[in-house]
Amino acid sequence: MTPASNANLVTDRPTFVTHLECGLTGQRYEADQLHGLSDAGRPLLVRYDLDGVGNALDRETLAARPRDLWRWRELLPVRDTANIVSLGEIDTPIVALDQIGKALGAAPGELLVKDEGRLPTGSFKARGLVMAISMAKELGVTAIAMPTNGNAGAAAAAYAAQAGMEAIIFCPDDTPEINVREIAAQGARVYRVNGLIDDCGKLVREGCAARGWFDLSTLKEPYRIEGKKTMGLELAEQFGWDLPDVIFYPTGGGTGLIGMWKAFKELQALGWVGDKLPRMVAVQAEGCAPMVRAWEQGERHAARWEDAHTIAAGIRVPQAVGDFLILDAVRESNGRAMAVSDADLARAVDDTATSDGLLLCPEGGATLAAWRQAKSEGWVKDGEIALLFNCATGLKYPLPDKSRTLDRNAPVDWRAI
Amino acid sequence: MTPASNANLVTDRPTFVTHLECGLTGQRYEADQLHGLSDAGRPLLVRYDLDGVGNALDRETLAARPRDLWRWRELLPVRDTANIVSLGEIDTPIVALDQIGKALGAAPGELLVKDEGRLPTGSFKARGLVMAISMAKELGVTAIAMPTNGNAGAAAAAYAAQAGMEAIIFCPDDTPEINVREIAAQGARVYRVNGLIDDCGKLVREGCAARGWFDLSTLKEPYRIEGKKTMGLELAEQFGWDLPDVIFYPTGGGTGLIGMWKAFKELQALGWVGDKLPRMVAVQAEGCAPMVRAWEQGERHAARWEDAHTIAAGIRVPQAVGDFLILDAVRESNGRAMAVSDADLARAVDDTATSDGLLLCPEGGATLAAWRQAKSEGWVKDGEIALLFNCATGLKYPLPDKSRTLDRNAPVDWRAI
Ligand SMILES: Cc1ncc(COP(=O)(O)O)c(C=O)c1O
Ligand SMILES: Cc1ncc(COP(=O)(O)O)c(C=O)c1O
Repeated sequence: MTPASNANLVTDRPTFVTHLECGLTGQRYEADQLHGLSDAGRPLLVRYDLDGVGNALDRETLAARPRDLWRWRELLPVRDTANIVSLGEIDTPIVALDQIGKALGAAPGELLVKDEGRLPTGSFKARGLVMAISMAKELGVTAIAMPTNGNAGAAAAAYAAQAGMEAIIFCPDDTPEINVREIAAQGARVYRVNGLIDDCGKLVREGCAARGWFDLSTLKEPYRIEGKKTMGLELAEQFGWDLPDVIFYPTGGGTGLIGMWKAFKELQALGWVGDKLPRMVAVQAEGCAPMVRAWEQGERHAARWEDAHTIAAGIRVPQAVGDFLILDAVRESNGRAMAVSDADLARAVDDTATSDGLLLCPEGGATLAAWRQAKSEGWVKDGEIALLFNCATGLKYPLPDKSRTLDRNAPVDWRAI
Repeated sequence: MTPASNANLVTDRPTFVTHLECGLTGQRYEADQLHGLSDAGRPLLVRYDLDGVGNALDRETLAARPRDLWRWRELLPVRDTANIVSLGEIDTPIVALDQIGKALGAAPGELLVKDEGRLPTGSFKARGLVMAISMAKELGVTAIAMPTNGNAGAAAAAYAAQAGMEAIIFCPDDTPEINVREIAAQGARVYRVNGLIDDCGKLVREGCAARGWFDLSTLKEPYRIEGKKTMGLELAEQFGWDLPDVIFYPTGGGTGLIGMWKAFKELQALGWVGDKLPRMVAVQAEGCAPMVRAWEQGERHAARWEDAHTIAAGIRVPQAVGDFLILDAVRESNGRAMAVSDADLARAVDDTATSDGLLLCPEGGATLAAWRQAKSEGWVKDGEIALLFNCATGLKYPLPDKSRTLDRNAPVDWRAI
């Protein structure tokens, strides 16, 4: 028996994937086959028969479906309903930071956060990985491997467990502790590596070659983008098909930014959103800002950032195989790339928790730090709606101990409490 | 500007509270005033003009509203929309534990978990506290105090921060570390006390008397139940108004069980659900099982459990002021009270993570351990739908380190990975 609220998980619906194509060269690849990068060594993008989608689905039908990621089925790649894995990929809420906003002159509702920490395993990585694992299942994969800064590995492990797949995960040795343990708790084999995410990626390539595991690295298989795309689809619907003015996205590998931009284009093709799209801001940390450097220098590709360091582990990605897709979206949207300091992003986390009661992850803090800068500069104008992405629950990151102790057997001086 | 998906937070709707009454004696109290316990020292229950609700609202109207807790506004106490505080109280998903269920002969979909870890601050305490703080705001409170085993304090702190209220929180010194830190991060003053939750409660009473803080302890103010009630309302709607056969609830103070039972009664009065209600199972730990003892002995009140101990901190509650409300609901529903060992609840957490990919909290693990026992005994029959409550995200609890290390500069023996 399936509760009515889970209908999307068990209802067959038509699917519309026509083919895949290289994001750089446009070279065509067949759907329904296992793929990694394109011949040009770049990410593959999934293409749909959008006329077909438009005939099969309208916004009213969508609105009547339960509110989870799988309601977008006609715009997703999974063919056979039986291959859907799920841990409850509900719509994430949009929370207003009215107190924080007011300090810089924003009116109530002008500064908003999409709180992605509510997804399975506590981060937006669940969106990408639920799709990648469902597709891996559909295409016969039995073992996956990936490098991770923490959250992606946790999501991969959880969905792989449900799908009955082996998962082998490699993370930098200073990955947030809770992530490492969570990955193992969910049945994956996890290795701490003395290096960065791209060093782990190198090990994954070797291991896949040696052992035949499927490589689930960011953008190295085509379906994580399709999962992340649902952030854009969902946002459009949550805003009544009238998107916010600016989106601040903490950018590591960039899947989310690329996915949202792809979503907006598909929604335009369907005629469900209008001409005006949000300005996309790629937010990075000063200690690891390859996209910011490339954007400032007018480059389409970003060189590796040496000696990458930032407390925001999720955006400590020295080099991204989808760099040009990120930079294209930023430029086409009249957005920008911004770097913030670790001190500013940490302060943003503190301030948000104490004034609006929302505990952001460090990467979410980075987007607020960037908004503060852009708002002060006047780049975000009065009256403009800005949406920040809090990509993971703040509970996954170390917090300071600010508690005091009280002896229940001693008299209490209540004026001092 | 408010996104369409947040409409419930800003739309005025009629409210129907008529009065409050003592849960034990039925003595009547006026609405729209600040109340603690009744004269009999027992919880107050909020009463509504349910005919009025039925005329103002139907299930179709409800279905068209955004999916958060505030869509139940006509069945909630907040009068003035401006007093609503919110961090995004979305509907929580229902996740099937098909692998775990299969081992004991349950068919797919017969064993389900409502994953309350998706709420703000990572636990179902957000439901109770968003209501208590909104009502405290409505009734002019500026400072609140409470004892907590962790999650309630975190939710109180977060909503108090947003409402601009002072929050002073007392917790046993072995409260899960992350909770203590989270409470402080969200701007509350937090004290670790060498004692249990009821020792902390005693300090709160003293402090409230000395400093004029409002006492937000479980069931000591009337509105946390109303918030928790939304678990029952939401379940009913998620199941298409046909409730599951059995509900397993990890019971400490019991607000959730009491709240759900109240919800079902209100829904029956509205004619929205039929005669058959779920059997309610109060799950406790062997090291702290006052309700189980009272249930077995046929008592309506439960004596304090001495030397309470269990790793499931949220249900380590030696004495509950709403004991009779819990026991009444269990009996009236033909349910039962069950105690499980710490070893069994820990094993349940492990098994669920590795076979179905869902990381439960220890209290959630307790409900699975209880289901396993009830199912083996045949008390839960084949074909019956059982719903477990996972009340908090498993990420809030210590996990073992099962990772291994790998040196990126040394050759890797891939067969051994
Ligand atoms: C919390 C958090 N924020 C942001 C990112 C960056 O995401 P993307 O790879 O889509 O740029 C990550 C990736 O690990 C993350 O975990
Ligand atoms: C995770 C968890 N489960 C269960 C409970 C018990 O809830 P109740 O007080 O409604 O019985 C608590 C309360 O602290 C909790 O934090």
